[in-house]
Amino acid sequence: MSDNSDEPHTKSHGRKTIQASFKPRALMDDDAQLARAWQAQIITLMPEAFPGILGNSLTGRALKDGIWQLHTVALRQFGEGKHRNVDDTPAGGGAGMVLRPDIMGRAIEHAIARAPGPLVYLSPRGKRFDQKMARDWAALPGVTLICGRFEGLDQRVLDHYRIAEVSLGDFVMTGGELAAQAMLDATVRLLPGVLGNSESTEEESHSNGLLEHPQYTRPADWMGRAIPDVLMSGHHGKVAQWRQEQAEQITRTRRPDMWEAYQARKDK
Amino acid sequence: MSDNSDEPHTKSHGRKTIQASFKPRALMDDDAQLARAWQAQIITLMPEAFPGILGNSLTGRALKDGIWQLHTVALRQFGEGKHRNVDDTPAGGGAGMVLRPDIMGRAIEHAIARAPGPLVYLSPRGKRFDQKMARDWAALPGVTLICGRFEGLDQRVLDHYRIAEVSLGDFVMTGGELAAQAMLDATVRLLPGVLGNSESTEEESHSNGLLEHPQYTRPADWMGRAIPDVLMSGHHGKVAQWRQEQAEQITRTRRPDMWEAYQARKDK
Repeated sequence: MSDNSDEPHTKSHGRKTIQASFKPRALMDDDAQLARAWQAQIITLMPEAFPGILGNSLTGRALKDGIWQLHTVALRQFGEGKHRNVDDTPAGGGAGMVLRPDIMGRAIEHAIARAPGPLVYLSPRGKRFDQKMARDWAALPGVTLICGRFEGLDQRVLDHYRIAEVSLGDFVMTGGELAAQAMLDATVRLLPGVLGNSESTEEESHSNGLLEHPQYTRPADWMGRAIPDVLMSGHHGKVAQWRQEQAEQITRTRRPDMWEAYQARKDK
Repeated sequence: MSDNSDEPHTKSHGRKTIQASFKPRALMDDDAQLARAWQAQIITLMPEAFPGILGNSLTGRALKDGIWQLHTVALRQFGEGKHRNVDDTPAGGGAGMVLRPDIMGRAIEHAIARAPGPLVYLSPRGKRFDQKMARDWAALPGVTLICGRFEGLDQRVLDHYRIAEVSLGDFVMTGGELAAQAMLDATVRLLPGVLGNSESTEEESHSNGLLEHPQYTRPADWMGRAIPDVLMSGHHGKVAQWRQEQAEQITRTRRPDMWEAYQARKDK
C-alpha cells in the first residue's frame, strides 16, 4: 500500500478536471464543492482506487456533468509516526490488525466538517444493501462511506459516531473499497439525469418487487432458437401481459421471498 | 466506452509482468496459463476496468505470485460492422438495448476453448452470491464471469449454454464489472496462500454462521471509552467466551435469519 505522505488529506473528483480515463490520479480536483451535486465521500487506505470504474461509462459521465462529486479522505494521512501507522493488534489477542479509534476519529472529523450525509461503515456485519437503500441514499445530499481493511474498525468509533453498518452481502472481502464502488454505482444511476431514459429503471429487477422478464433481440433465429412469437406480434398489450407473466413466474420460482412480499403488497 | 478494435481478443494478468499499479493496461500479459493457478476469465465490454483494485493489496500480490490468473475477453472484438456493434433493440419494444446472442455466443466459444470452470452471468435475477459460493468457486479450477451492460443478455444465450445467473445482491448496477470484481475479491482471498494467517478466516463474519464479535485496539481509553476489561485480562478462555457470546448476541439481534440457521445446525 502506498504511503501518500506527501499528498493532501483529500482528493476530489468532479466536473472541473474529469477525463474519461482509468487512471484515477488524472481525475484529481481541488476541494471545491458543486452546488446541488450529490456528494460521495470515502474514507480509505486506498484513495488511488477511486474513482476506478466509476470514472467511466454512465457514472463517469454523471461525474463529469457535475451530477455527483466524489471525495476521498486518505486515512493514512492521519496515521502516526514515520510510517503513519493506522492499526494495532486486537485487544485480547487474535489474528490480524484493527484500525485505531483515534486515527479513524480524526479522519471522520475531517470528513464531517466538509460534506453532509450519514456515516456508513462497510462491513459484513451490517444491514444488507439493497435497491431501497440505494433509492434512500440517492434522495439524501450525499453519503460518507468508511472502508475497512484488516480485521476491522475499533468498536468505540462505531459507537461514538453512531455509524451505520452496511453490508454488500453475506461474504467477506479484503476491504471495503469494492463494496463502496458497487453501492455508489447502484445509487448514482438513480440520480436525476444519469440514465437517459427514465423508463429504464421501471421494468428492471427489484424496482417493482419482481425480477425482470427475459429479453430478446436480433437475430430472430439463433442456433435453432426463435424469439417468442408474442414479442414479434407488434401487439403492445399482449407483449406487456407476456412480460408481466414471465416476471411473475421467474420471481415465484427463483425468489419465493420476493414473491411473498410482492403478493402481500398486492393484497393491500 | 473505448472501441479497443486494434487490440487482441484476450488480455491476461498474471505472474509474468505484474506491477503494483492501478494502471491496468500495464498488467497485460500474453495468453499463457500457469499450471495450477486459479483461472478467472471475464467477458466484458470494459476490459480496461480489470484488474482494477484486484491488482493491488492481497489479491494483487496473489496475482503476482501466480496463485491466480485473470483473463479478460473483450466482447467488443466480436461485434459487427465498422462500429463493432454488440447490441440491438429489445424484441417487443421497450427502453434500452440487449446484447445480441450471436455476438455473445462467439465470445463464449472463445472463452470455453481456453479456460475451465463454470459460465456465470452476473445479473440481479440470479442466485445471490455468498460466502459458501465463494468457497465453492475457490475449490474449482476457475470461473468465467459474463458482465452485462444495457438491458441485459438475450435469453437464448443463457438457455443454450446453461449459464448460471448469480447476483451480487438485490440492487441494480450499470454493469457487471464491479460485481465481478467483488466476487473475485471474496473468492481469491480464500485460495490457499493468499491470506497470511489461516486463522483470519475462521473467526470472521459468515465463516462459522455468526457475525463477527466487536474488535478493539489501543489506545486503552479513547474519548472516555475504555476497552472491555475482559479483553485486557490476559485470560484466553474468558476472552474466547466473551467473543463467542458477543458474536451470538450480534447475530441474534441483527440477523434473525442467520441466527435461526445457526441454531438449527447446532441442534443436529
